[in-house]
Amino acid sequence: MENGNGVKLMENGLSLKLQNGTHWGFRGNKDLDTPPEITIRGVLGMLKDTIDPADTRSTIPLGHGDPSCFPFFRTTEVAEKAIADALQSANFNGYAPTAGLPSARRAVAEHLSADLPYKLSVDDVYITIGCTQAIEVALSALARPGANILLPRPGFPIYEARAAYSHLEIRFFDLIPEKGWEVDLDAVEALADENTVAMVIINPGNPCGNVFSYEHLEQVAATARKHGFLVISDEVYDHLTFGSKPFVPMGVFGSIVPVLTLGSISKRWMVPGWRLGWLATNDPNGILKKTKIVDCIKGYLNISADPTTFNQAALPQILTKTKEDFFQKIINMLRHTSDICDQRLKEIDCITCPHEAEGSMFVMVKLNLELLKDIRDDMDFCFKLAKEESVIVLPGVVVGLKNWLRITFAIDPCSLEDALGRIKYFCQRHSKQK
Amino acid sequence: MENGNGVKLMENGLSLKLQNGTHWGFRGNKDLDTPPEITIRGVLGMLKDTIDPADTRSTIPLGHGDPSCFPFFRTTEVAEKAIADALQSANFNGYAPTAGLPSARRAVAEHLSADLPYKLSVDDVYITIGCTQAIEVALSALARPGANILLPRPGFPIYEARAAYSHLEIRFFDLIPEKGWEVDLDAVEALADENTVAMVIINPGNPCGNVFSYEHLEQVAATARKHGFLVISDEVYDHLTFGSKPFVPMGVFGSIVPVLTLGSISKRWMVPGWRLGWLATNDPNGILKKTKIVDCIKGYLNISADPTTFNQAALPQILTKTKEDFFQKIINMLRHTSDICDQRLKEIDCITCPHEAEGSMFVMVKLNLELLKDIRDDMDFCFKLAKEESVIVLPGVVVGLKNWLRITFAIDPCSLEDALGRIKYFCQRHSKQK
Repeated sequence: MENGNGVKLMENGLSLKLQNGTHWGFRGNKDLDTPPEITIRGVLGMLKDTIDPADTRSTIPLGHGDPSCFPFFRTTEVAEKAIADALQSANFNGYAPTAGLPSARRAVAEHLSADLPYKLSVDDVYITIGCTQAIEVALSALARPGANILLPRPGFPIYEARAAYSHLEIRFFDLIPEKGWEVDLDAVEALADENTVAMVIINPGNPCGNVFSYEHLEQVAATARKHGFLVISDEVYDHLTFGSKPFVPMGVFGSIVPVLTLGSISKRWMVPGWRLGWLATNDPNGILKKTKIVDCIKGYLNISADPTTFNQAALPQILTKTKEDFFQKIINMLRHTSDICDQRLKEIDCITCPHEAEGSMFVMVKLNLELLKDIRDDMDFCFKLAKEESVIVLPGVVVGLKNWLRITFAIDPCSLEDALGRIKYFCQRHSKQK
Repeated sequence: MENGNGVKLMENGLSLKLQNGTHWGFRGNKDLDTPPEITIRGVLGMLKDTIDPADTRSTIPLGHGDPSCFPFFRTTEVAEKAIADALQSANFNGYAPTAGLPSARRAVAEHLSADLPYKLSVDDVYITIGCTQAIEVALSALARPGANILLPRPGFPIYEARAAYSHLEIRFFDLIPEKGWEVDLDAVEALADENTVAMVIINPGNPCGNVFSYEHLEQVAATARKHGFLVISDEVYDHLTFGSKPFVPMGVFGSIVPVLTLGSISKRWMVPGWRLGWLATNDPNGILKKTKIVDCIKGYLNISADPTTFNQAALPQILTKTKEDFFQKIINMLRHTSDICDQRLKEIDCITCPHEAEGSMFVMVKLNLELLKDIRDDMDFCFKLAKEESVIVLPGVVVGLKNWLRITFAIDPCSLEDALGRIKYFCQRHSKQK
């Protein structure tokens, strides 16, 4: 069965009799225990496969938040040296404890505490394989029969896939573009019941590039407390803000509601391939311990793979020795490329941007299909764009908004100008005659 | 609730009303979606906590297969340099493809093909976060409602935990100590039915230190084919053999039955903390593709964390440039320390070894509790041993055999002699008067 975009949906089946006469009792299935096939990585991979090899122009990736291949976005020497030193000491070739090296946990606790009204302890931090594993651990630890979780729409599809995999019922609340992609708190109130275990926020926002204000986060905390669920705050883009609102960690409201903060060095240090992140319990009242969520986190980590030990050993150096000018240089560039994006997109009739990015590496923009003559939907737009212009953009349907696009501006400015020029040309070519 | 050994079992519960009046709807639980608490890492951690800080002697770890902290077992410079080069190139700071870097996949395919009667292709290999993630991927890909999996007893508890987590019914077959820990194939025949998706073998053996012969593996293949299930062959200790039997990869029988081979550089290169492994499909007849197992593997990897990209980039150098004398030096040392272990254990009345190790880093030995006056079981033995002698040994119950012990001999010879002397003294002190 194909869904029309080359995404194969698998059939359920119990067994398969093959020609050689053996009756094989195993078979893949499309039940609860297998993840959905539409993931960001899956779709970006298919888009990449669509690129015309005869196109002599370079392929420009506006699909994912990974600018590490551009020289400007090379990480700081401090971080590279910290890893090399830990590796070459040969002291970190062995297994690390389940929760992470104590030195790494302590360093993250101190790093996060700098922005909090209370101090995290070493026991509040678990070192994870990037933010991806932090998501997996958080959702696995919260899963129980009958439970449900509130996820943002648009959002990050790994939450949906992992929740489904852990048999957590998913309920979506909207982010409102007209309100700067704030959470629709009325929807949250309407969705929550006594089996709601958590709501997820992503701040700074992926895919929307928005930044939540202190006041809005306080409202989120009050809503969560009222209904008795915790907040999972995905802060993998923490401190990557360049608009008028500063980054406020959700943990600031940890005494109102327990918060699981998910983070990593992937984005701020431009090293997503290093796979080094964390899950932190922001819970000065100790509710997560009393409710045994902490035991569930530890139990799940006990049967899970760990981050590379020497990477963990380097974390204290990376977090404390990186100079402020490295961060500032990155922020200034993201402000610049975000501005380029806003300006160039205004020149394209069939694309509108309801809210310019203030943080992270993305902006969500809306397609007006009525202005296009031969584009069926956002998926069709992106596959044709890849084929005709060698530019990769993520279809909004993958992050929950059909006929929108998620565009990253975290690439070098020349490539960005080039890509947006190609998108403009593509849209003109496919526009209806006026 | 405590199970008598300090292992806390969590109660199931839906919600918890705390003093501050908020009714929190989340709570940890001991249902299908949370893993069991008794894991090797969990128990070793508790044993470590039992060590008397007043003991001035060093703690000797005979509990896990990780000799990387001993200078003799330091990895080869070739491997360290390969990682450092990949890191410092700055070409591998970004995300890798879901299945792994193509260069790493190709290198593993060629590496494994050297021991096979056919060639693996780059598409047969998936790079994983050590063998731990390879286990997770294999079991997750095979899970479907009603399916069961056959696991060895004694075995490696992460299989049990991951199977339970994926709702795979677990059926245990015995390994027979009197037959050199061969698989009880009659038991496998009796356990298998039309819902059996796979059986797991670990070769060279953990926890038993045995090595399966070519003939026995051929019988395993014939049994699996007869009943139509695949074989998961955990070869994380591949080539670490020092007895009369050579290592034979299960993939040799891939044309009889599809084989998922799990491996890593953790053990042979003495770098378990680098977290770099693989899952390979040994399936010249393409059955895993036809039955969609390959799609399930890819789907699960799409929502999972990846190994560090620069580690992946180093894999071709590590696999092809490591000199044979590095491996030979390690093998010779393991043969030597295994011999020490056999000799010294013979001096201890209450411990018997039915089959001396021929490979891996472990031997399984049996406790005769009737000769001891105040030891309740293997767990009690290990906790008292840790407290009184600062020696850590794994209780057999953790790997499925109550009142046995798993002892690793993969440490430096002086420490091993010291530890076995302490165990002898401990046993004498606790023995019944004759």
